[in-house]
Amino acid sequence: MWEVLNMIGTIAFALSGVNVALEERYDLMGVYILGFITAFGGGAVRNILIGVPVSELWAQGTLFTIAFIVMTIAFIFPRMLKWTLLRRGVFFDAIGLGAFSVQGALYAQSMGLPLSASIAAAALTGTGGGMIRDVLAGRKPLFLQKEIYIAWTLIPGLTVGLGWLTGPVEVLLIVAAVVTLRLCSVYYGWSLPRRFQH
Amino acid sequence: MWEVLNMIGTIAFALSGVNVALEERYDLMGVYILGFITAFGGGAVRNILIGVPVSELWAQGTLFTIAFIVMTIAFIFPRMLKWTLLRRGVFFDAIGLGAFSVQGALYAQSMGLPLSASIAAAALTGTGGGMIRDVLAGRKPLFLQKEIYIAWTLIPGLTVGLGWLTGPVEVLLIVAAVVTLRLCSVYYGWSLPRRFQH
Amino acid sequence: MWEVLNMIGTIAFALSGVNVALEERYDLMGVYILGFITAFGGGAVRNILIGVPVSELWAQGTLFTIAFIVMTIAFIFPRMLKWTLLRRGVFFDAIGLGAFSVQGALYAQSMGLPLSASIAAAALTGTGGGMIRDVLAGRKPLFLQKEIYIAWTLIPGLTVGLGWLTGPVEVLLIVAAVVTLRLCSVYYGWSLPRRFQH
Repeated sequence: MWEVLNMIGTIAFALSGVNVALEERYDLMGVYILGFITAFGGGAVRNILIGVPVSELWAQGTLFTIAFIVMTIAFIFPRMLKWTLLRRGVFFDAIGLGAFSVQGALYAQSMGLPLSASIAAAALTGTGGGMIRDVLAGRKPLFLQKEIYIAWTLIPGLTVGLGWLTGPVEVLLIVAAVVTLRLCSVYYGWSLPRRFQH
Repeated sequence: MWEVLNMIGTIAFALSGVNVALEERYDLMGVYILGFITAFGGGAVRNILIGVPVSELWAQGTLFTIAFIVMTIAFIFPRMLKWTLLRRGVFFDAIGLGAFSVQGALYAQSMGLPLSASIAAAALTGTGGGMIRDVLAGRKPLFLQKEIYIAWTLIPGLTVGLGWLTGPVEVLLIVAAVVTLRLCSVYYGWSLPRRFQH
Repeated sequence: MWEVLNMIGTIAFALSGVNVALEERYDLMGVYILGFITAFGGGAVRNILIGVPVSELWAQGTLFTIAFIVMTIAFIFPRMLKWTLLRRGVFFDAIGLGAFSVQGALYAQSMGLPLSASIAAAALTGTGGGMIRDVLAGRKPLFLQKEIYIAWTLIPGLTVGLGWLTGPVEVLLIVAAVVTLRLCSVYYGWSLPRRFQH
């Protein structure tokens, strides 16, 4: 189950990177680079900050290959990409957010790090790849402005960091909760309070 | 004394992040994120580059809590924030610059690294958080253009890197010197020479 | 031979950072910072991602000094800089790209990492410094849009990663190939296919 979620998250984020690269009219290489950065950048930043040996990053050969194939297909058939991503790429991006934020929190916890690390790892893994993607593409990172996005990573960050998650069923429930809440945020326009300076 | 300076620096940079987030009209979560990144980002980048075990980053639980409380207060009472930061947040930011650049240089020296590492660690710790904050907020990093800013971190970088600092009094004097010089730079508009290309 | 290539790459990238800093009208300190980041940033990112101990970064004292002297000369005699860099700084930048991408791939391979790491290390070392430079200067990273640039780092990434490079002559040939292909890309306007979304 875990592998499947990880794979779906990787594919979804790779496609989201391809989508931005096509919108910005990058060439073939730019498409691959943004795709890889979006899919693996969040995990890389998290690994560095929580001290996972970097060699683990390079042990994901299968995922690299899958991401490469998916991006090639998306580059050749861009219409399929638009169809798959639904409105603004929201659906798969939400699944990626759910799967990756839970995975990040579990990583941090398995390293014996405190609650703050779980929260940060959940947020970084879930949104870090998209953050680097937006900065490189010259866009203001959307996660700071949109409907509630990064805040949902607090759920896996807190539940895992406090040790409340013990079985795979609970993990699956948390992933489903993040995905559902993220989708609701977009469709109903949920947003957090903000202040204006005059 | 050291703990107090560290705390003041963290609070000052957290507030500076909150300030930018409010100016850019981010929501509550964006305010917290930019605040945390500004307060702890510089130290994180420095730790990675000079090889401090990352676990130290997550041992700052008390500072996390303090930063969280301060940011919450700043979000609820934004007027107080503007009053505290004086003109353009200059005062506390200067204290943060002084305390963090000295701390960064001492870290690098205590790792037995050469002079270049002390200089880089002082510059990164003192200004790295603000740099990441500006890039994420879509602003051109101010440190590259303003009145003399990052150049003052050369003072702790050189004095500590050359082993001239031995006692806590000298540390305090260097911090005070950086703070004073930074404040003077802003109030008297000191700037370094620059060249224009035609 | 290796040392010479490394030195030329460092000098070329330092000058390219100085060039951007002068165009953006940074002050003296900004010039040094952008120069250092461009020259050493790519290697630093690579070292972090492939797990080279960071202490190696600070063992480059001679290179730091050389870069510092070159940047000082370039700041004092900016006309010489423009003359040296030829059209758009293309020539030395290409040499830097060739030398650094091969070096990065060899690093990754000497760590016993798989093919994917060699490819990523070649790309990061060859183009990472320029990437950070552009993001800090508020520019959209050129490597994502220009004539074929980062794609040429696939050549050292693949040949080294697959273990085809064994002697210094072959290393030199690969460097020469990357430099030549990059220069041809610019002068003949070679570019990769791209797709537009309507």
